[in-house]
Amino acid sequence: MSINKIKLQPSERLDDLLTHDLRIIQSDEVFSFSMDAVLLARFAGLPKRGKVLDLCTGNGVIPLLVSTRTKASIEGIEIQPRIADMARRSVMLNELGDQIMIREGDLRALSGITGYGVYDAITVNPPYMPLNGSDITLNEHQAIARHEIHCTLEEVLKACMHLVRTGGKVSMVHKPQRIGEIITLMRKYRLEPKRIRMVHPRIDKEANMVLIEALRDGKPDVRMLPPLIVYNENGEYCKEIMDIYYPST
Amino acid sequence: MSINKIKLQPSERLDDLLTHDLRIIQSDEVFSFSMDAVLLARFAGLPKRGKVLDLCTGNGVIPLLVSTRTKASIEGIEIQPRIADMARRSVMLNELGDQIMIREGDLRALSGITGYGVYDAITVNPPYMPLNGSDITLNEHQAIARHEIHCTLEEVLKACMHLVRTGGKVSMVHKPQRIGEIITLMRKYRLEPKRIRMVHPRIDKEANMVLIEALRDGKPDVRMLPPLIVYNENGEYCKEIMDIYYPST
Repeated sequence: MSINKIKLQPSERLDDLLTHDLRIIQSDEVFSFSMDAVLLARFAGLPKRGKVLDLCTGNGVIPLLVSTRTKASIEGIEIQPRIADMARRSVMLNELGDQIMIREGDLRALSGITGYGVYDAITVNPPYMPLNGSDITLNEHQAIARHEIHCTLEEVLKACMHLVRTGGKVSMVHKPQRIGEIITLMRKYRLEPKRIRMVHPRIDKEANMVLIEALRDGKPDVRMLPPLIVYNENGEYCKEIMDIYYPST
Repeated sequence: MSINKIKLQPSERLDDLLTHDLRIIQSDEVFSFSMDAVLLARFAGLPKRGKVLDLCTGNGVIPLLVSTRTKASIEGIEIQPRIADMARRSVMLNELGDQIMIREGDLRALSGITGYGVYDAITVNPPYMPLNGSDITLNEHQAIARHEIHCTLEEVLKACMHLVRTGGKVSMVHKPQRIGEIITLMRKYRLEPKRIRMVHPRIDKEANMVLIEALRDGKPDVRMLPPLIVYNENGEYCKEIMDIYYPST
């Protein structure tokens, strides 16, 4: 669909997703995606067909990128109406309305609408920070995206347990600081960690991102993948990051 | 003490620990240490003074190496009499009897002897494999060191909770395959993971070892350290491994 038919709101801009000619509506004041979402969209285990769900979908960056990797139908759910609307317009813009549906709503109530165990795979890039009184410089949109205001880590994982089928996959990107809680809560909710990948800004730095995939009702057996290093010693993107950001289409 | 005063049993040999002129009694038939123990002895958080305990001490390699890093008194406990005897003779050989004591016994019963919360730090390189019917080619000594015959992962961590003081550290080396269970059980027994380091044979290979340090009654907040890479692209030890194996004395 031509950009002329999609209306951009104040502060919004149109960015290039650099693969499959995808474009996305962004806004520094409302929502713009980060590398975390791009890495998760590449990392997540996906079915060839079936149903995929993206929780905390934001402006729909993960559904858009995931659509290049699977024929499955993809749903995204976002609790903020303003941001869900951005995501819907980006889906229209890319003419992906047949594959991607954006829901506006609360992930904690979703299984009451869809039923239990209906998704083959779930992706989620949730708010990273426990709720506290800091970050008062953030506006409401940013605060909800970054802090556990509308859903805690535990609520996200409980929802995943309800929504994914037995043998289905749940993939998450989060902060390594919380990996103890993540693993404990995943296992509490019958999501067995199976693949973990640490993302380090440089090879000699601590990880600042963790990618983790769990299997509903899987057996304990983790593959700890090679580290993903973002920058080489010259401060340039490493080859794998270049391949993720600029994949051959 | 001169080697002439220490009797070597059949199959035993004397190896050099390559630091501080330490030597150790080994046997391919009974017990010989691996890189895992060396990396743990370097990784573990240790008090400058106080009391350190090494569970599943084997031939005492970890107490010997740890003695170069702390003035603390060090105890090692080993359930196999034949191997505990090797460890004791290595302590004598290095004239470290004032700092290191080797106990023969079952770690599950140790807090009944020593009391609760008496150690400032604990190290443990436990058997890695759950008990099953395989590995029938191993002799009894090897099977007990590698399989959870006399203690499970859960029993080891429960013993650590009993033995370490509040605020004390527990450091373990294990297989990444079991990190889900390790983290869940540590947290069940009030040992909060704080520092984790993955060991990869090469930068593009999955991890085959995990080093993990927990704090008794700590708050959830994990530092995921830079990956430790063993071999470079030429198949030689990386610099950090060389520094660990051949530290300046």
